[in-house]
Amino acid sequence: MNRIHRDESALYHACGYSCDNAIYLRLGKEAFFITDGRYTVDAEANVRGAEVITARDLPKAAAKVLRKSGAKKLVYDPMEWDVYTFHRLKNKTALCWRPELRLAQKERIIKTPEEIGLLEKAARLGAEAFDAFAAEIVRSGIGMNEQELYQIAIAALQGDEGRPLSFDPIVAIGPNAAKPHAHPEKKTRLHKGDLLLFDAGIKYKGYCSDRTRTVRVKKGFAFDVDQRFKDKQTQRAYDAVRKAHDRAIAKARSGMRARKVDALAREVIDKAGFGKYFVHGTGHGVGLDIHELPVISSRSRTRIEDGMVYTVEPGIYLPGKFGIRIEDMVVMENGRARVL
Amino acid sequence: MNRIHRDESALYHACGYSCDNAIYLRLGKEAFFITDGRYTVDAEANVRGAEVITARDLPKAAAKVLRKSGAKKLVYDPMEWDVYTFHRLKNKTALCWRPELRLAQKERIIKTPEEIGLLEKAARLGAEAFDAFAAEIVRSGIGMNEQELYQIAIAALQGDEGRPLSFDPIVAIGPNAAKPHAHPEKKTRLHKGDLLLFDAGIKYKGYCSDRTRTVRVKKGFAFDVDQRFKDKQTQRAYDAVRKAHDRAIAKARSGMRARKVDALAREVIDKAGFGKYFVHGTGHGVGLDIHELPVISSRSRTRIEDGMVYTVEPGIYLPGKFGIRIEDMVVMENGRARVL
Repeated sequence: MNRIHRDESALYHACGYSCDNAIYLRLGKEAFFITDGRYTVDAEANVRGAEVITARDLPKAAAKVLRKSGAKKLVYDPMEWDVYTFHRLKNKTALCWRPELRLAQKERIIKTPEEIGLLEKAARLGAEAFDAFAAEIVRSGIGMNEQELYQIAIAALQGDEGRPLSFDPIVAIGPNAAKPHAHPEKKTRLHKGDLLLFDAGIKYKGYCSDRTRTVRVKKGFAFDVDQRFKDKQTQRAYDAVRKAHDRAIAKARSGMRARKVDALAREVIDKAGFGKYFVHGTGHGVGLDIHELPVISSRSRTRIEDGMVYTVEPGIYLPGKFGIRIEDMVVMENGRARVL
Repeated sequence: MNRIHRDESALYHACGYSCDNAIYLRLGKEAFFITDGRYTVDAEANVRGAEVITARDLPKAAAKVLRKSGAKKLVYDPMEWDVYTFHRLKNKTALCWRPELRLAQKERIIKTPEEIGLLEKAARLGAEAFDAFAAEIVRSGIGMNEQELYQIAIAALQGDEGRPLSFDPIVAIGPNAAKPHAHPEKKTRLHKGDLLLFDAGIKYKGYCSDRTRTVRVKKGFAFDVDQRFKDKQTQRAYDAVRKAHDRAIAKARSGMRARKVDALAREVIDKAGFGKYFVHGTGHGVGLDIHELPVISSRSRTRIEDGMVYTVEPGIYLPGKFGIRIEDMVVMENGRARVL
């Protein structure tokens, strides 16, 4: 199948290297990695199984390769291309362009044993960073503002290795946690007894980890799932989130539709009376991208299969009061979900 | 002019707030900011002059607003939209979609005095971070590897404030600097006398700084432009880059085409015999985006005008040997370029 890619993770998956300006073409048995002069040295050293072509105008160079190859059909993912670049390129060619939504992610949806190993390692390093962050908060974090805590979190996540992060971490205290994608604020300081939500991940050899814990900060606390809050409503919401998280993981089965996995979590939260405050899907696939297939939401018809890796992350967000989310990555193995 | 935006900087410029999943519509005197439930709280607190609409399916919600408004024409930037989302949205509407390439960036190409003030502050904070990084290298950096230096650089750039960075900084030693977008390596360590290239920037109130220095590391060195290298070829290349940088800044004039500014730098490097190793354009506009208009390249027909802010960053990259780049941000004022 002749194909063209532009997305960085799709490129990396296809040839072991990627950068922010490149086009990958597979045409029969030949493959081409077209990039600009800034990346030539790196690309030539790292691209596997494709000829590196340096060009200033990438769509023009790709069109030239396509014309020369005599290819008649080409599969592309309409989400990988901006409207402008796509039409410039398409208009320079005479072949049949066949759209295939999430082409690269569909191919990566079942992880290989090697990929599962890398994701498991990423998850473990990510969890260790949570421990390091907790230890640092216990040591010196009380009284710090969210921005200072965010800095410490970054240092814990990067570690001595300077690991890349899989996304901008979320460090949110009390009511700020009600924004599922909160930005750290200078004016909010951490006090003993505060609720703290931490959502973060790292990358290991390109593969992402993703994890969230919501805790009550006290002497010697840890980012674990056993938490006691003084406020009764907070505790009720926390218990519902935890039960939803545990139930979705315990009852997920290969062959089940993803929306059923979402329902396993959502039903618990609905029943507890917080349904309208669970404003997002239950989870998402994780791999080279922090968000990839499968989508675990109430509308997702995807069938869950062995080898899929995804997050389970129910949450309850009461504007102005608190936000709670518990998130783990799971892999489907022998028909069931195992936490990574 | 009725318009639609999806790009984060375009959104921020239009209404003072942005997030990674939103659509902005201006229809006559009305404006709408459509986002998903994760951002509702933040959006309602920060969006200026637009009604916040929360939706799960953004294109569907936007189409509904468009139909209800009775708008006949809509201007959009084909670079802001992926092919899939754009066609989903367009197919749900009956109006005339008029493409305007870089719509938002064109409107931002001349900076307001307020924006120039913010960019100047960003440039100053960025330069101070260079000083802090140099001091830290002098104190403890000799013997560190590129990844460790990269960590220190990040800390210097973020400062006590936890400032966001305008891009992933480049810290490259010797031959690694030959890759204009190098990644830090663990195996390369810094020794006294090494060439070190540092390209980095921070964001101040959304506005980016961008700066590069190439230095010979020694006791008490600074990231300034007076540099002496032991290797003669390195020194010749350095002198050419510096002369190219200085000449482009000194001779740039409002009314000149951007490709002429590029030529002012390129001619010096060509003449020194390094022309084929200057593999990128001379510069780019800087603002809310780290790369925006004007493009300063050999093909750019844009006329430079007072109020434009852009980088001047010639470079010479000899694969396997060294890379040299000197970069400053300038603003056009009273017909001339002033370094920020």
